[in-house]
Amino acid sequence: MTRISYIDDMELWQQDFRFSHTVKVRFSETDMFGHLNNTVPITYFELARVEFFNHLGLMKKWLDTDNETLIVVADVQCDYLKQVYYDEQITLYVKTDRIGNSSVDLHYMGRRDNGEIVFTGRGMVVQISRITGKSIPWTDEIKSIYKEQR
Amino acid sequence: MTRISYIDDMELWQQDFRFSHTVKVRFSETDMFGHLNNTVPITYFELARVEFFNHLGLMKKWLDTDNETLIVVADVQCDYLKQVYYDEQITLYVKTDRIGNSSVDLHYMGRRDNGEIVFTGRGMVVQISRITGKSIPWTDEIKSIYKEQR
Amino acid sequence: MTRISYIDDMELWQQDFRFSHTVKVRFSETDMFGHLNNTVPITYFELARVEFFNHLGLMKKWLDTDNETLIVVADVQCDYLKQVYYDEQITLYVKTDRIGNSSVDLHYMGRRDNGEIVFTGRGMVVQISRITGKSIPWTDEIKSIYKEQR
Amino acid sequence: MTRISYIDDMELWQQDFRFSHTVKVRFSETDMFGHLNNTVPITYFELARVEFFNHLGLMKKWLDTDNETLIVVADVQCDYLKQVYYDEQITLYVKTDRIGNSSVDLHYMGRRDNGEIVFTGRGMVVQISRITGKSIPWTDEIKSIYKEQR
Repeated sequence: MTRISYIDDMELWQQDFRFSHTVKVRFSETDMFGHLNNTVPITYFELARVEFFNHLGLMKKWLDTDNETLIVVADVQCDYLKQVYYDEQITLYVKTDRIGNSSVDLHYMGRRDNGEIVFTGRGMVVQISRITGKSIPWTDEIKSIYKEQR
Repeated sequence: MTRISYIDDMELWQQDFRFSHTVKVRFSETDMFGHLNNTVPITYFELARVEFFNHLGLMKKWLDTDNETLIVVADVQCDYLKQVYYDEQITLYVKTDRIGNSSVDLHYMGRRDNGEIVFTGRGMVVQISRITGKSIPWTDEIKSIYKEQR
Repeated sequence: MTRISYIDDMELWQQDFRFSHTVKVRFSETDMFGHLNNTVPITYFELARVEFFNHLGLMKKWLDTDNETLIVVADVQCDYLKQVYYDEQITLYVKTDRIGNSSVDLHYMGRRDNGEIVFTGRGMVVQISRITGKSIPWTDEIKSIYKEQR
Repeated sequence: MTRISYIDDMELWQQDFRFSHTVKVRFSETDMFGHLNNTVPITYFELARVEFFNHLGLMKKWLDTDNETLIVVADVQCDYLKQVYYDEQITLYVKTDRIGNSSVDLHYMGRRDNGEIVFTGRGMVVQISRITGKSIPWTDEIKSIYKEQR
């Protein structure tokens, strides 16, 4: 397995996830190489992230157009460890890693039914103002919500 | 070729298009059967429709969230005549068919480089109010824009 | 509600479904109009159809590249009855309608949690040869599998 | 601007691209936040990469199912520098960076019409055997094709 820059110890890293959301690979998500197209895990990360924020009670406000803040993705990366196929059930895991002033690093893991990790990832999201586009610091309340989930 | 309910005479029908927009089939648009996934022509119809409305000078207003009206799709249908493959160049044609009070029927055709028609389609779009969700009649100006394009 | 060409009696029609598969609207499936993009229900139809064929025990063979037959979509149509939003749970229903020699008409229905029908659809799939591209009649066994599900 | 791990000097880095492919943001690629959904630049990377490999004369062989080798994506990352909107024209740039034994690192850049860089990225692709799934070293010919493009 390739060394992955954002994972120090794979054993510890994978035990640290508490939130998960399961998907089944759709036929339309495959490509002519016969496997899951490589762009799809990125949509899975978004799905898992939004479900995670929903679970933390944060998503609703960001979706409300009368609310000033929303979140944007600053960067994302994905490491593909195993080929994934149509109809497989993949459990997506998400956790917060480093919590910044107005940003948070999220880590992702996809695991197939037999326990194999099929892809991992990370990415930073930033809270910004809908009006100015500038970053807006997390409240203490949100910070502690993140910390509990760490 | 299957008889298609919205086409009386294929020869006349295909000569009647004036607007077109060309796409190239993306690798991520194929599926594990090795061809263009059947859901993609519907995204091509949307693409062609939006380009068509842009061309007619209508799209900008509908995208402006301060403007009351926007358009929604009431129905869509697609007939798949030929299998389409990665890297093919497909020219998408759009025209207005029946113009209703607050709706318009659009017809679609996809043609590959050798002239073969690979799919056809139609669908109604309706102008509605962003606030009430109810249909809003076309102005006479918009109606005549549609008629000229017929 | 618009009259829909493939539905005679909406009450009877909707009672006749036996197979269903549930999805939750993903954030990446919305568009800048704030609702489910109109192209997505077509991917839901594919998803429901493939799950349906899986359930009938037919999908595995068609996915096997050593098997001569596979199925292609001949046409599809969708009627959008209600706007659908992010995070909604939609139950997708599928049933066989007219069974042809080498084709079958499928009907689709999407229903939100409160029971409202949000979209309906239909479309024909055809069994073809991977080698010649020509249609291949259903076996009697497959025909009776379809009939039981009707 | 965030420091990006794979870019030493942004000025030099961006001058080093020779291949580009232009796309226009599709309506169906936006999301309910009103901008280009963050998963889409990854599909743009794939599109640009495949066009690049096509341009280098390498893609055809990998798509041929009678040929033993194909390529898979080992990892990908994307940094989002600016929000991108519907109907914008984005020029996608690709270049080879480090050339490994059976892998190659590709760098990506997206630029809008006014010259602003809207996203950057990188990712490794690996040549593997269709049969064993194991990596297969590049031939000297392919290596020199990459080097010329560097």
